[in-house]
Amino acid sequence: MSSREEITGSFMKLQEAICSGLEQEDGKGRFSRDDWTRVGGGGGLTRAITNGNVLEKGCVNFSAVSGKLPPFLYKETGLDEKHPYDFYATGVSIVMHPNTPHVPIIHMNVRYFEVIPLSEAGKQGIYWFGGGIDLTPHYVVAEDAKVFHRLLKGTCDRHHPGLYPEFKKNADDYFFIRHRNETRGIGGIFFDKLAGSPSVTKDQRFAFVMDVGQAFLPAYLPLVRKYRDMPFSEAEKQWQYLRRGRYVEFNLVYDRGTRFGLETNGRTESILLSLPPQAQWTYDHRPEPGSREAETLELLQKGHDWAV
Amino acid sequence: MSSREEITGSFMKLQEAICSGLEQEDGKGRFSRDDWTRVGGGGGLTRAITNGNVLEKGCVNFSAVSGKLPPFLYKETGLDEKHPYDFYATGVSIVMHPNTPHVPIIHMNVRYFEVIPLSEAGKQGIYWFGGGIDLTPHYVVAEDAKVFHRLLKGTCDRHHPGLYPEFKKNADDYFFIRHRNETRGIGGIFFDKLAGSPSVTKDQRFAFVMDVGQAFLPAYLPLVRKYRDMPFSEAEKQWQYLRRGRYVEFNLVYDRGTRFGLETNGRTESILLSLPPQAQWTYDHRPEPGSREAETLELLQKGHDWAV
Repeated sequence: MSSREEITGSFMKLQEAICSGLEQEDGKGRFSRDDWTRVGGGGGLTRAITNGNVLEKGCVNFSAVSGKLPPFLYKETGLDEKHPYDFYATGVSIVMHPNTPHVPIIHMNVRYFEVIPLSEAGKQGIYWFGGGIDLTPHYVVAEDAKVFHRLLKGTCDRHHPGLYPEFKKNADDYFFIRHRNETRGIGGIFFDKLAGSPSVTKDQRFAFVMDVGQAFLPAYLPLVRKYRDMPFSEAEKQWQYLRRGRYVEFNLVYDRGTRFGLETNGRTESILLSLPPQAQWTYDHRPEPGSREAETLELLQKGHDWAV
Repeated sequence: MSSREEITGSFMKLQEAICSGLEQEDGKGRFSRDDWTRVGGGGGLTRAITNGNVLEKGCVNFSAVSGKLPPFLYKETGLDEKHPYDFYATGVSIVMHPNTPHVPIIHMNVRYFEVIPLSEAGKQGIYWFGGGIDLTPHYVVAEDAKVFHRLLKGTCDRHHPGLYPEFKKNADDYFFIRHRNETRGIGGIFFDKLAGSPSVTKDQRFAFVMDVGQAFLPAYLPLVRKYRDMPFSEAEKQWQYLRRGRYVEFNLVYDRGTRFGLETNGRTESILLSLPPQAQWTYDHRPEPGSREAETLELLQKGHDWAV
């Protein structure tokens, strides 16, 4: 059965492979390597890229942290507060902000979480996997959205035909900026609390999660190649800054990973690497009716069936 | 006794007076007037300024909203969820982002909140006042911090000598960015749930709150005058963008007013007018030891006794 060590090791390799693939495509930017340790236990390797040819700011973060389960997580996990638990959490988290508004922002995360009753230290605890990939184009292009979603559907379908519809809906619901009544982007897939069960083993779950991680480069690199050299206007750049503002709003107001990190005294600089290099907020900005910006706003709604 | 109507009317006049004072000092920017209504009841008047000589982006918002008390407020106010309550909330809220890094960001808020059991409609309900003023210099100047805090202390002392020490500490604790271990700025005063009591009447509370509101212009205009024409470098502008990033972090992660507004389906464009026109996030930025930026970071800690 996939052990904690095996999962952790595979996530580390995934981080390495994705950094290499992105560096190769970018051609200039190089990922830094910042090792850090967490006071409560564990640590991580933050890899940040800045000022690349395409990748203006981005991160491929790995972490493996452990310690006493923080009080607020008892409620969330439905555990009895009277019993002490340890937790172990490992994952890879990616956000890329390109310098051109024609290349989308992308986010990917795979994670493994384990809760161990202190009285059973060393044993296999209650565990689950989570993760997802989603795309935030500054300008939504239907054809690209279809290619992106079909690739994710293919990845899911290789494991079970029921996964994509469920996880696609999860992403629509999760990556939603309620106070704007807008989705963050065109969604993707999102899943949480995938546990083992008699019919689906831990190995199978883990194989699925690794497939999602390995879908990152094939999902993103074609978009980078397609748009990296397309010229853009100052007005398009301004629009990109506004859309990045929305990205900041989602991440700081709603994103559970960000909030979990900040509330568990995670490494702030690593967590907030998801924020864009610059963002803007303009009072009551409304794009020209019929413009590409207005069209994008119309498409930032739940329920588009892109994979058909 | 100060009625709901009287308080509301005074807040509207305060908004008008502050807009006039700021326009006069700025010399170019003019406040817009956007009336809005809230689906659940009430509405407001949003006044935004952009691209002034000094005031790059700012707002002086008035609102007076009412309706059924939202579920999450029962817990916060300690009311029994079995009984239905209406609420009434009115206030003025200000944030100013100047274009020069030498003029500080300022925030002021005065508010009145009333909760009325439905069975006693029309009667005076449980009520309280809240508010505060705080200053966020991009560069902390000790002399200015002293003048600012002394003015606030003077305002408080006219009502009771115990107010300033208590409300100054509140501000230190409230305007704190926990995940950065930094205060947002040099603080000021902050108070919540000021209710009437046998020894302090509602009229006295209200008089204090109006004094805080009227302290806004005398607290801010001298700083605008002192620094508006001081030249600044590109590096100082970059530092301003980073400090504005911290402002965004505070407002979206911690600010209760922002969260209250977003969760009660307030007018998003009005609420998020507190966000700066542009902000930046640079991975692991560390100012040169001994620089003015490093000195500012050292001063962004709780407990400085500026008013002495």
